[in-house]
Amino acid sequence: MALTDDQRAEIEAPRLSPSTTLRPTVAALEARLFTPIDLLDHGFLRVVDYMGDDGAIVQAARVSYGRGTRKVSEDAGLIRYLMRHRHSTPFEMCEMKFHVKLPVFVARQWIRHRMANVNEYSARYSILDREFYIPSPEHVAVQSVSNRQGRAEALPAGKAAEVLELLRRDAARCYDDYETLLDPERYGLARELARMNLTLNTYTQWYWKIDLHNLLHFISLRADPHAQYEIRVYAEAMLDVLRDWVPVTAAAFEEYRLGAFTFSAGMLRVIRRQLAGEMVTAEDSGLSRREWDEMQAVLAGGPNG
Amino acid sequence: MALTDDQRAEIEAPRLSPSTTLRPTVAALEARLFTPIDLLDHGFLRVVDYMGDDGAIVQAARVSYGRGTRKVSEDAGLIRYLMRHRHSTPFEMCEMKFHVKLPVFVARQWIRHRMANVNEYSARYSILDREFYIPSPEHVAVQSVSNRQGRAEALPAGKAAEVLELLRRDAARCYDDYETLLDPERYGLARELARMNLTLNTYTQWYWKIDLHNLLHFISLRADPHAQYEIRVYAEAMLDVLRDWVPVTAAAFEEYRLGAFTFSAGMLRVIRRQLAGEMVTAEDSGLSRREWDEMQAVLAGGPNG
Amino acid sequence: MALTDDQRAEIEAPRLSPSTTLRPTVAALEARLFTPIDLLDHGFLRVVDYMGDDGAIVQAARVSYGRGTRKVSEDAGLIRYLMRHRHSTPFEMCEMKFHVKLPVFVARQWIRHRMANVNEYSARYSILDREFYIPSPEHVAVQSVSNRQGRAEALPAGKAAEVLELLRRDAARCYDDYETLLDPERYGLARELARMNLTLNTYTQWYWKIDLHNLLHFISLRADPHAQYEIRVYAEAMLDVLRDWVPVTAAAFEEYRLGAFTFSAGMLRVIRRQLAGEMVTAEDSGLSRREWDEMQAVLAGGPNG
Amino acid sequence: MALTDDQRAEIEAPRLSPSTTLRPTVAALEARLFTPIDLLDHGFLRVVDYMGDDGAIVQAARVSYGRGTRKVSEDAGLIRYLMRHRHSTPFEMCEMKFHVKLPVFVARQWIRHRMANVNEYSARYSILDREFYIPSPEHVAVQSVSNRQGRAEALPAGKAAEVLELLRRDAARCYDDYETLLDPERYGLARELARMNLTLNTYTQWYWKIDLHNLLHFISLRADPHAQYEIRVYAEAMLDVLRDWVPVTAAAFEEYRLGAFTFSAGMLRVIRRQLAGEMVTAEDSGLSRREWDEMQAVLAGGPNG
Repeated sequence: MALTDDQRAEIEAPRLSPSTTLRPTVAALEARLFTPIDLLDHGFLRVVDYMGDDGAIVQAARVSYGRGTRKVSEDAGLIRYLMRHRHSTPFEMCEMKFHVKLPVFVARQWIRHRMANVNEYSARYSILDREFYIPSPEHVAVQSVSNRQGRAEALPAGKAAEVLELLRRDAARCYDDYETLLDPERYGLARELARMNLTLNTYTQWYWKIDLHNLLHFISLRADPHAQYEIRVYAEAMLDVLRDWVPVTAAAFEEYRLGAFTFSAGMLRVIRRQLAGEMVTAEDSGLSRREWDEMQAVLAGGPNG
Repeated sequence: MALTDDQRAEIEAPRLSPSTTLRPTVAALEARLFTPIDLLDHGFLRVVDYMGDDGAIVQAARVSYGRGTRKVSEDAGLIRYLMRHRHSTPFEMCEMKFHVKLPVFVARQWIRHRMANVNEYSARYSILDREFYIPSPEHVAVQSVSNRQGRAEALPAGKAAEVLELLRRDAARCYDDYETLLDPERYGLARELARMNLTLNTYTQWYWKIDLHNLLHFISLRADPHAQYEIRVYAEAMLDVLRDWVPVTAAAFEEYRLGAFTFSAGMLRVIRRQLAGEMVTAEDSGLSRREWDEMQAVLAGGPNG
Repeated sequence: MALTDDQRAEIEAPRLSPSTTLRPTVAALEARLFTPIDLLDHGFLRVVDYMGDDGAIVQAARVSYGRGTRKVSEDAGLIRYLMRHRHSTPFEMCEMKFHVKLPVFVARQWIRHRMANVNEYSARYSILDREFYIPSPEHVAVQSVSNRQGRAEALPAGKAAEVLELLRRDAARCYDDYETLLDPERYGLARELARMNLTLNTYTQWYWKIDLHNLLHFISLRADPHAQYEIRVYAEAMLDVLRDWVPVTAAAFEEYRLGAFTFSAGMLRVIRRQLAGEMVTAEDSGLSRREWDEMQAVLAGGPNG
Repeated sequence: MALTDDQRAEIEAPRLSPSTTLRPTVAALEARLFTPIDLLDHGFLRVVDYMGDDGAIVQAARVSYGRGTRKVSEDAGLIRYLMRHRHSTPFEMCEMKFHVKLPVFVARQWIRHRMANVNEYSARYSILDREFYIPSPEHVAVQSVSNRQGRAEALPAGKAAEVLELLRRDAARCYDDYETLLDPERYGLARELARMNLTLNTYTQWYWKIDLHNLLHFISLRADPHAQYEIRVYAEAMLDVLRDWVPVTAAAFEEYRLGAFTFSAGMLRVIRRQLAGEMVTAEDSGLSRREWDEMQAVLAGGPNG
């Protein structure tokens, strides 16, 4: 369901009356403030407020009286240092507030990140909209055999169409009956009960506020190739927001976290042997097959490499 | 779905091989350890581990070298004092771990309590059982008018039966199709996708661990008459467990929290006038109608009184 | 030690270059942004950033597309409702960042509030200033007998002067020796070691960021008459900031939290008997002496009344 | 100050009356339960309670009805998998409670780990013992030049002796005056005030409870060579306890965390060039000098290698 005209007007309204502030302000972020980033078929992510910028991180790290920033290069160096050595507290000094619309099954993964503040639209208090997530055909994929919690290749087009038809039909019927249950002329069932008849792809929405340190943690887990596609698109959209909001931090994050790889003690032993000119094989590496494969993929420039 | 014989055997197994420990141990709790308390139609709550007892609270409050307990009456007095003055840290020194089976829509409320540890059964990794919550007829109630997020009286028997039939039919069909989607002979859809077709009354399960302070907070919110019935039964079962585990704390909790009532500044002004013999009415009380009604209910010995 | 001219200039600098923002902005708070509120002899509290306002609370509670505010009276009614029923999550949607200078022994109490973000000035990395808290004579008080963790009346002037002289002398000598230990010409001792020679009244400083819900909790505990005076002055200064920042929330907080009193189950029984015209005495009240006294004080309009 | 006979008796008492329990129990840990591990000159760490074992981790990961353990090799494989992929929630299902005696300046670092439960001995309520940390001469080290927050080599013996004498004298004088201030015959100053005259090397003590996931995080930061020696000894003692408590987890932790090293995106590029036979120098590596040096140290088998 697209945004209604009323909703669009509500979203645009603050743009007509900017305020003056002494707080750190990021022009690139102000430009996209409030505007929804469309995700999946009916979801979105939009920034509704933020606190701080790259400068606020160095200001806090230095416990400064003023803005605390020095030369651009020094500030960037400090941020890279903090990121590399996992000094997390200065990053906690920035905060972002999102309004998110997302399917319930995605919300259930998302909420596992406890270090955030959440206000969800209440289906005890209000009636949910008739909106459910139906994947696009190319994301209708078979169960992966190698990864017990992932998906593999897409189904053939015909099969995918049948799957989508089935998902659509069940969600629609459940929603129809949800409305019937709520209807005061029919049953007038309590909303807190009627909602149980909805399917897990029904959309919900919430306000979600998180500090930058925990946001980075969320992104590093959920923008990962092993994360489920339907949550990954949100994490990737956040990363894109980050690049506008805190460009120096975003770059350091990509260098030292997203693009990095942790070698175990055993992997380090292998690398040392290899650099000394030794030919090491999976068999005599001392690593499990899975670890060996992961390491080779990284050294070949694969994911996380 | 009742427990299978295998599950019952698994649950009983540890009972055959008790261990010796120097840790604080509570006999009344050991007696009911592991055994599920049946809740709703297919749910349960069972204690799988615990740390500490009433004595551990006073031991921590006194930062003792030994058990730190003194006379029973002194220990009880200290616990009452801590409860009354909301000194929460000593209660954090006890911990309880539950295995819970509960409908997804209940799980979604429950998880909002962030100060706990959770491992949920993964529907990305495994296939959920064919179990959904269908209320008993007396809990099929109409939407409350006075309380926008609650329910009022039960539906007439005939209507309730129709509601239940509808809930049962939709959940069953969705589950059937979930199986069809997963079936390798049919679609072999990835589990992480197929699960979206399930209804919100499908049962899930998790391990949930929480310290006693946060457990009391959970119970005070969720055993409240305003909490949804379907989560309240779990909170009430926990309160019952508490009475076996930490009887002194449980008694103090009922006296100073569950059975207590907070009078606002305005309510205190009313009480003072009343005790001075003045006849105060809703109109000249300075309270909102709702506050006045709540206060009168409590003074009449109603809920929370 | 007063602020240096450089520090004053740093503090004032942002005032010269305000920005334009679409975010919620509070004029009364902008006016006092950055300016230190002097506390104790060398301490201060100053707001360095904030997110949200009263409107942001109702916006989150309603999960709105726009600002989400309606009529002023409706918004205030919603905030009062949320405060009264301890719906805490909407208050978590506002955030405040302080720069605080405070004695170490106060910092040790303060840090027990875990739900906040902190960056403390590092005495491993930098050298602390020569500043220690010396109470003003009227706060040099004897140990309370009735309250084992509080103070009673002030010492006689002559005695107080001796106490202050002693505190001043010990702190000064320890600081002198700290400098000697650090002096590269003398010992060049590592800063992380030298700092252990300082007394607990030495001033430290930190950036401290917290959401409004947790800030209210902090204030309710630390602005309480039972809190130590030296932390209470900070909590009271925060309450004053709140009145400018979120006036509706601050009023509701004073009505339903600071000015409220919780009657235990036993106290409610007493009140009911009294309102029914019965003469209840401490002896037949069923309450402990201490509970009886507290209750009488409140009904007489005493503290928290 | 050594433990008093009374304290020793208190500590030993529970050993005389073991209980029977159905909970997971670890014999190697029971053997050392309660007994203090002496650290620094007057400090200690002792386990006062624990919940769970290696099996409890796999039990939670599998959301099992019973103990959930299978073959030893499968369980170990699962724990290694969870550790490697940073699936932290199953590790949160184990909990440990320590009684710790430590200098105040160490306590101030320690408390920055917020995800733990703490009850500290209250110097508002009680009088602290006459005990302060005086380093042994080999730990009296000069400020490091390369690491602004660390120490370098030890001072010459004569200089070190002077430093220790000075630390001892100041701490003793401050403690003497603390006693004078408290003395009812002299001033009877409130304890909450008198304590400010103590030096930061005074010992305090607390009960500290933490889940295994957060404990591993604490150890990984505080057993690190860059951590201050005085907190590192506590972290190392914890690691030693871990080896008895959860041997499989401890081994995985050493393999995948303590002994591991994270290569940034830039470092991975260098490694790839090196493995392809290219000679890479600091200058053309694209890394900062500091990053290059760290990487070379790890590849040479240095710290964290």
